[in-house]
Amino acid sequence: MIDENIDESHPRYHSLMMRKKIADAGEKGMLAQSAMIAHGRGEAFDYLLGEQTIPSAMDATREMAARLVNAQKPVLSLNGNSIALAGPDFLKIASQLGCPVEINIFYRTPERMGALLANLKLAKSNLGLDVEILGGMPDARIPNLEGPRGSCHQDGIFSADVVLVPLEDGDRCKALRDMGKEVLVVDLNPLSRSAKFATVTAVDEVTRVAKNLIQLISERPQSTNYNNEKGLQDALNHIVNTMSTQNNQ
Amino acid sequence: MIDENIDESHPRYHSLMMRKKIADAGEKGMLAQSAMIAHGRGEAFDYLLGEQTIPSAMDATREMAARLVNAQKPVLSLNGNSIALAGPDFLKIASQLGCPVEINIFYRTPERMGALLANLKLAKSNLGLDVEILGGMPDARIPNLEGPRGSCHQDGIFSADVVLVPLEDGDRCKALRDMGKEVLVVDLNPLSRSAKFATVTAVDEVTRVAKNLIQLISERPQSTNYNNEKGLQDALNHIVNTMSTQNNQ
Repeated sequence: MIDENIDESHPRYHSLMMRKKIADAGEKGMLAQSAMIAHGRGEAFDYLLGEQTIPSAMDATREMAARLVNAQKPVLSLNGNSIALAGPDFLKIASQLGCPVEINIFYRTPERMGALLANLKLAKSNLGLDVEILGGMPDARIPNLEGPRGSCHQDGIFSADVVLVPLEDGDRCKALRDMGKEVLVVDLNPLSRSAKFATVTAVDEVTRVAKNLIQLISERPQSTNYNNEKGLQDALNHIVNTMSTQNNQ
Repeated sequence: MIDENIDESHPRYHSLMMRKKIADAGEKGMLAQSAMIAHGRGEAFDYLLGEQTIPSAMDATREMAARLVNAQKPVLSLNGNSIALAGPDFLKIASQLGCPVEINIFYRTPERMGALLANLKLAKSNLGLDVEILGGMPDARIPNLEGPRGSCHQDGIFSADVVLVPLEDGDRCKALRDMGKEVLVVDLNPLSRSAKFATVTAVDEVTRVAKNLIQLISERPQSTNYNNEKGLQDALNHIVNTMSTQNNQ
């Protein structure tokens, strides 16, 4: 569906490649239709950010790295879009941290879970990494979250103290916070409920965050008394300034 | 994929219903995967507009109505998303104007064209309208536009003086302008190339524009010396002000 021959010199090459990855994953049955719509919303916000990691997002990502490194029991909670866009990089991060990844999707069907598990297992085998992949046989529930999206693994999300949940929905983010966990979110919309509920939010594109996390985790940074509201406000200021500037051109 | 039971009292009911229409059309083979991503981008901008028709967008829509009413040979150029979201309303508009609609899609395949033609023909029959539906047998080309998206009908887009092209891509919008046509665009992103190239751009959601056009065409307004740049600037100001306000809450 997406042009196969995207020229690397195209100013929006990276964004177009991400779109292609999402469309391809959709055709492989890894994603709900709504996942493609969600990707488009993210594209719009990334466009307004200038498709770059702004300094406050890098600060948030460093804070995430610190909290993951210092966690007793970290876990990476991955949905379909995270796996489609950055599955191999999240496996590398889990390997660095020695923690599991857990697949947790909003519209759970056996077919979609099967496609996502197969995709991650193949990536793990290609990378030669030893990472536990959870999600296929949930045996616990996130309290106050109805339906299949409340399902989780006792040894994974349920008992984790720090959860990285890129591209999370607001209700689930809040439910995880209510369990007393530190919730680290990647969300391009600084006004979203997830962005506001999270302990730390990187207002950034998920593949850029994954690459940055790999580097930052290796530096083993110290965690700080992070002010998430300030980070979100900075991202919003950046977007507003970008639009105002374009407006005056 | 999308929850069937959306409560009408939900504050974002209309937006969620639009998302469902797009997902359903995707499952019927009417849309490319990229069409769903494009819908998501639109959703993000509509969210920033407050999911409402702002006054400058209503002015633009009135101007579009005037130019369509006064055209020698108007045509409505519809892509997959326009048909999925507002096909029946565009048929009503074509009937008001006594003009054809022409299906013209970016990623043209026989299957997708067939699904879109069948969908519009069924809607036309249900409405009992007499509207010519073009697009199935293109016999002319838009100059300087490569590939299938340059295909059009001699009796439709090729010879039209005023073309309404909701949700158009930038290259095609520019190519139509270069043919000397008035191009009327509906685009939620006031910074897009289409929005800038168009003769008149309504920065608004396509189903709201279609409803407004039906009303405004019946009033047969007079066209003015419309300043499109001013309309786009007003929409951008509105978005920036909305974000700044949310920022301070």
